[in-house]
Amino acid sequence: MEEQKQQPQEIKAVSEVSLVITSPLDLLFNPRSVAIIGATPRENSVGGVITKNLLTKFKGKVYLINPKYDEVNGIKYYKSILDIQDSIDLAVIVVPAPAVPKVADECARKGVKVTIIISGGFSEVGEEGAKLEEELRRVVQNRIRVLGPNCIGVYNAFNGLDTFFLPEDRMGRPKPGPPVALISQSGAVAGAILDWAARRNIGVGLAVNYGNKLDINEAELLEYFARDSRVKVIVMYMEGLKYPGGEGKKLLEVMKEVSSVKPIVVYKAGRTKAATGAVKSHTAALAGNYEIYRAMLKQANVIEADNLTDAFDMAKALATQPLPRGGNRVLVITDSGGMGIQSVDALDMRGLQVPELSESLQEILRKQLPPLAVTRNPIDLTGSATDAMYKFVLDTVLPTSYVDMALIIALMQIPGLTANLGNYIIEAKRFNKPIVVVSFGGNEYVAKFESHLEENGIPVYHAPHRAAKRCGRCMSTQK
Amino acid sequence: MEEQKQQPQEIKAVSEVSLVITSPLDLLFNPRSVAIIGATPRENSVGGVITKNLLTKFKGKVYLINPKYDEVNGIKYYKSILDIQDSIDLAVIVVPAPAVPKVADECARKGVKVTIIISGGFSEVGEEGAKLEEELRRVVQNRIRVLGPNCIGVYNAFNGLDTFFLPEDRMGRPKPGPPVALISQSGAVAGAILDWAARRNIGVGLAVNYGNKLDINEAELLEYFARDSRVKVIVMYMEGLKYPGGEGKKLLEVMKEVSSVKPIVVYKAGRTKAATGAVKSHTAALAGNYEIYRAMLKQANVIEADNLTDAFDMAKALATQPLPRGGNRVLVITDSGGMGIQSVDALDMRGLQVPELSESLQEILRKQLPPLAVTRNPIDLTGSATDAMYKFVLDTVLPTSYVDMALIIALMQIPGLTANLGNYIIEAKRFNKPIVVVSFGGNEYVAKFESHLEENGIPVYHAPHRAAKRCGRCMSTQK
Repeated sequence: MEEQKQQPQEIKAVSEVSLVITSPLDLLFNPRSVAIIGATPRENSVGGVITKNLLTKFKGKVYLINPKYDEVNGIKYYKSILDIQDSIDLAVIVVPAPAVPKVADECARKGVKVTIIISGGFSEVGEEGAKLEEELRRVVQNRIRVLGPNCIGVYNAFNGLDTFFLPEDRMGRPKPGPPVALISQSGAVAGAILDWAARRNIGVGLAVNYGNKLDINEAELLEYFARDSRVKVIVMYMEGLKYPGGEGKKLLEVMKEVSSVKPIVVYKAGRTKAATGAVKSHTAALAGNYEIYRAMLKQANVIEADNLTDAFDMAKALATQPLPRGGNRVLVITDSGGMGIQSVDALDMRGLQVPELSESLQEILRKQLPPLAVTRNPIDLTGSATDAMYKFVLDTVLPTSYVDMALIIALMQIPGLTANLGNYIIEAKRFNKPIVVVSFGGNEYVAKFESHLEENGIPVYHAPHRAAKRCGRCMSTQK
Repeated sequence: MEEQKQQPQEIKAVSEVSLVITSPLDLLFNPRSVAIIGATPRENSVGGVITKNLLTKFKGKVYLINPKYDEVNGIKYYKSILDIQDSIDLAVIVVPAPAVPKVADECARKGVKVTIIISGGFSEVGEEGAKLEEELRRVVQNRIRVLGPNCIGVYNAFNGLDTFFLPEDRMGRPKPGPPVALISQSGAVAGAILDWAARRNIGVGLAVNYGNKLDINEAELLEYFARDSRVKVIVMYMEGLKYPGGEGKKLLEVMKEVSSVKPIVVYKAGRTKAATGAVKSHTAALAGNYEIYRAMLKQANVIEADNLTDAFDMAKALATQPLPRGGNRVLVITDSGGMGIQSVDALDMRGLQVPELSESLQEILRKQLPPLAVTRNPIDLTGSATDAMYKFVLDTVLPTSYVDMALIIALMQIPGLTANLGNYIIEAKRFNKPIVVVSFGGNEYVAKFESHLEENGIPVYHAPHRAAKRCGRCMSTQK
C-alpha cells in the first residue's frame, strides 16, 4: 500500500508513456498496434462491435483483416495479417472456430507475441471442440501467447483497448479510476459488472476475462496487474480451477506474492455442493471444496468478498483510503439518530469501537453546536444539521488521538445540507485517516453529493452495514 | 394472505369511497377535512412545506389557521380553529411548543377527534420540555387523540395527505403500490426511505412516524394497518420501547393478531450494547436486550429484516407474490452461467433446492433450445439467449409439479434480449407460483426492464443472494 499517497496517473496513450515492454502480457494490455482478424463493418456482430470500439477509442494503430472487404468508409481491410508491413503487438481473433488455428499460425509467422481469441466453439462445446482446441494448442505452443479462446478479452479504460463485444448502449464503460482491475472467469459477469460500475461511478481501469484458459491464466494476469502501477486493487471473480492441484498451488504462490504488493479481493462462486454441476457445465472447471479455497485465500492474505457488490464495496475503499494506523476506533457523525444507531450496531458487530469522547473535547463541541446536538459519539447533529457543523466536528475530532477513522452519515433529505458538505468531507482527507460515507435516498441532491465524493476519492455506501463492513475489512488487512 | 389475488384498489379520494369511519385512527389516515394550525405561505419552513403539500395534493378540504394572515393567493387564513364553521376530521399542529397545549385545547373544544403534533421541543429536549409534554397530556387526555409530538406525521399516497415536511426536491414521494405501509420510530429514517423508495419504484402507500408517542403508539398503528385493505404488507422500523414491560406485552399481542392477517416485516435497530446510549439520546427509548426482542418477534410470527433495504426487499416480494404451495424447489433460468452458479449457492445456503429436471422434460427443452444451452436446472440459455427461449422454458417447466417457484436471471447486456422478455415473465404469473428476478447492470435497457417488471408485480433484485433470500423467506412464512 506504499502507493497510497501517489496521485492517480494521468491518462495517456501508451505510445506517449515510456512503458518498458517486458513481456507478452504487457503487450496484451498495452499494445501499440492491434490487428483485428475477422474485422467487419456489420455493427451488430461480435466482430463489428470490436471493430467499432477499437477504431473509435483505441489510442494506437488498428489494422483490420477480412478477405471479404477491400475498403469501407475509407478504412483499408487486409486479406491476411501477413499482408501488413508494420509490426503488430496484439492480434484479436474473431473468426469462426475452425478457421482459428490457421489464422493463429499466420499471427505466429508474422511475429505477433500475443493474441486474444474471442471465438467460441472449442472445448466448451464438447468433444469435437476439444479436438480443435488441442489442434490450436499445438499451433501456438512456444510461438505465441493466447488469451482465451471463448472469452470477451480485455477492457482498458486508459488506452481504449476494448474487445468486450457488447455494444455501448447495452454495456456502459466505466472510467479508469480509482483504478481497480478485474479478473473474471465469466464473460457475462464481467460485462454486467462493467455496465453496473459505469453507472455507479466505480472506476474499473482494466478488466479481463480469460475464457477456456488454453494458455494465459489467473496467476499470470495477477502478476501483470501487480506490476502495473496504475492498478491499486485487484478484484477477482472465480468459479473454479481446471486442475486444482497444480494450478491451485501456483495460484496460491502468486497470490501470496501479489497481495504483499497490493490488495486482492476475491469472490469465489460455486461454494456449495449444489453448484458443482453448474460450475462444470459453465467453464469446465472444478468448483472444488470451498473450505480448501477459503483456507488458501486466507493463507495468501487475500480478502474474500461475499458477493459481487461486496467485492467492489471493498475495492473502492481500498483503492482510495489510507489504512488506519494503530486502532479500531471510529468517529461517527450523523444527521439522523436512527442511522447513527444502525451504524453503531454494524460497527460493534464487526469488532470496531465507537469510543465516547473526552469531556473536554465534548465541551469544545457543545460550545459550537446547537443544544439539541448529541456530542458523545455517535455525534448526532440532528435534522438541524448544516454543512458547517459537519466541518467543525471533522476538523475538531478527526485529527485527535481518540479516533482512527470516520464513518459519516449524511441524509441529504435534510434541507440544511448543501453540495458544500462534500467539499468539507473531501478536505478532511488531509488528516490521513480512512473516511467512509453513508448516504441513502434517491433525489438529485443525493446523487450529486455521492458522485462528487466518489470522484474525489471518498467511498459512499447506501447502508450503514455496508460502510461498517469496509471499516472492519480495512482493519483486517492492516495485519 | 387471502387478499393475494385481489387487484390493487383504484386510487380514489376518501370522500369518494364509502369508508366506514370507526375510529380516530381512521380519521388520522383518511380525513375528509384537515386544519393546519401554523399554516404559512413561507415555502421553506416546516409549516410552509406542509401547507403547500396539502393544498396541492390532498383530496379533501384544507383549512389554514394562522392569526398573522387573512388571505394569501386567494386562500383564506383563520385566526383559530374555533372560527371554522365546518367540522374538522384532523388537525395538524405546527406552532412553537409553548403554544401547543392551548391550540390542542381549542381542537378538542372544536370536536376534532385526532391531531398530528409536528412541533418539537417536548420531552426530547430535556426537563423543561418534559414538563410541557405533561401539560399537553393533561389537556388532551380523554378528549382528543394525538400522534407525536415531535414527529413528521403521516404520508398517504392514496389521498395526498402528506405532513412529511421535507420539500419534494429533497424527498421524492413514492407511488402507492404495491401497497406497503411503513411505521418508523425515526422521522429522518422514514424520510430517507420514502425518498429512496420513490426513486427505486417501490410502492409505499402509507407511512407514519410517531415521534414522542405521547398517545398513539406502534400497536395501534399496526391494528389500523391490519384493518386497511389497501395495505398488503407492513414494514416497521423500531429502535426501542419506552416501557418495555407493559408496552412490549401489548405490542406482542397485537403483532400476533395482525401477522395472522397480513405479513409484518420488522427491522429492529439498537441491537448491540454499544448502541444503547445512542438509542436513549435519540428517542428516549430503551433499546432493551435484543435477544428478548428477537424472541418476541419470532413468537409473534413477524419476519425480521437485517437492515432497511432488506426489509423492503422482503416487503416487495410479500406484497406481490403468492406463497409457494408445498415445496422449496426452485427453477433457475439464466443467460449467464456465472450468475446461475451464484444463485444456486445462495439458494442452497438458505435450504432451498434446485432440483434436476426429469430426463423427459429435459428432452423437450433440448428439442427447442440451441445445443449450447444447459437444460438440467439451473437452465443456462447462455449469451445466445432470446426472449422466446425464456418464454419457452417458463411455460414448459414452471407449471409442472417439479418446481414450486422461479428465480429468473436476465443480464440485459445480452443483445438478444428485448423489452418483450418482461412481458413473458409477467405472463408467467398465471401459473400462480412465486417469481423473483435478478438483474444487474446500469444501462437503460436494464432500468426499463426492471421498472416494467416491478410495475407489474414482479420483484427485481440486483444480486442473486438478495433474490434467493426472498425465496427462502417466502418459504419460512409459509408455516
